[in-house]
Amino acid sequence: MSEVFLALADPTRRQVIRTLGSGPASVGDLARPFTITLPSFMKHIRALEQSGLIHTVKRGRVRTCSLDRDRLSVVGDWLDEQRLVWEARTDRLEDVATELEEI
Amino acid sequence: MSEVFLALADPTRRQVIRTLGSGPASVGDLARPFTITLPSFMKHIRALEQSGLIHTVKRGRVRTCSLDRDRLSVVGDWLDEQRLVWEARTDRLEDVATELEEI
Repeated sequence: MSEVFLALADPTRRQVIRTLGSGPASVGDLARPFTITLPSFMKHIRALEQSGLIHTVKRGRVRTCSLDRDRLSVVGDWLDEQRLVWEARTDRLEDVATELEEI
Repeated sequence: MSEVFLALADPTRRQVIRTLGSGPASVGDLARPFTITLPSFMKHIRALEQSGLIHTVKRGRVRTCSLDRDRLSVVGDWLDEQRLVWEARTDRLEDVATELEEI
């Protein structure tokens, strides 16, 4: 899970994730909007691949990237867990408030 | 937003966020479940504070930490954005499927 959060801790990588949400794309197409060099861009692609957020396949000279939505869902699952903790707290606070009212 | 994701890219820091979900706690209480040294633990607290995910207040010798839920919501907002991109893609794919059926 740490790898996923670390992969998302960069605006270039988040933009790649966003673009791949519309469907698979080649590294060349993905790199186009950015002003960084291709080797620098490839480091981001590798970081995303290692986190499991994207998969890549090389056919001839073109490497195509695709998003793994299931892997991204670990972020949503973690957030949902936190919300359960908050709700449990709110319930306890309400119980205390009710008890105070009854005094 | 990168700072928030970076802060969450560590199991100790995620555990602190989870614990603070139940309410404010002192650094001493938060550190107790971990086997790392207090200086190492303080680095995590500072990283969380710098990301804006927690706030801390020192009163006497006790530093109390509290969670900033609003700051954590940037993660959920980002995820929601991605889902909108996916849904737009699904709609387009459905349009193509309908057109193919009509051929």
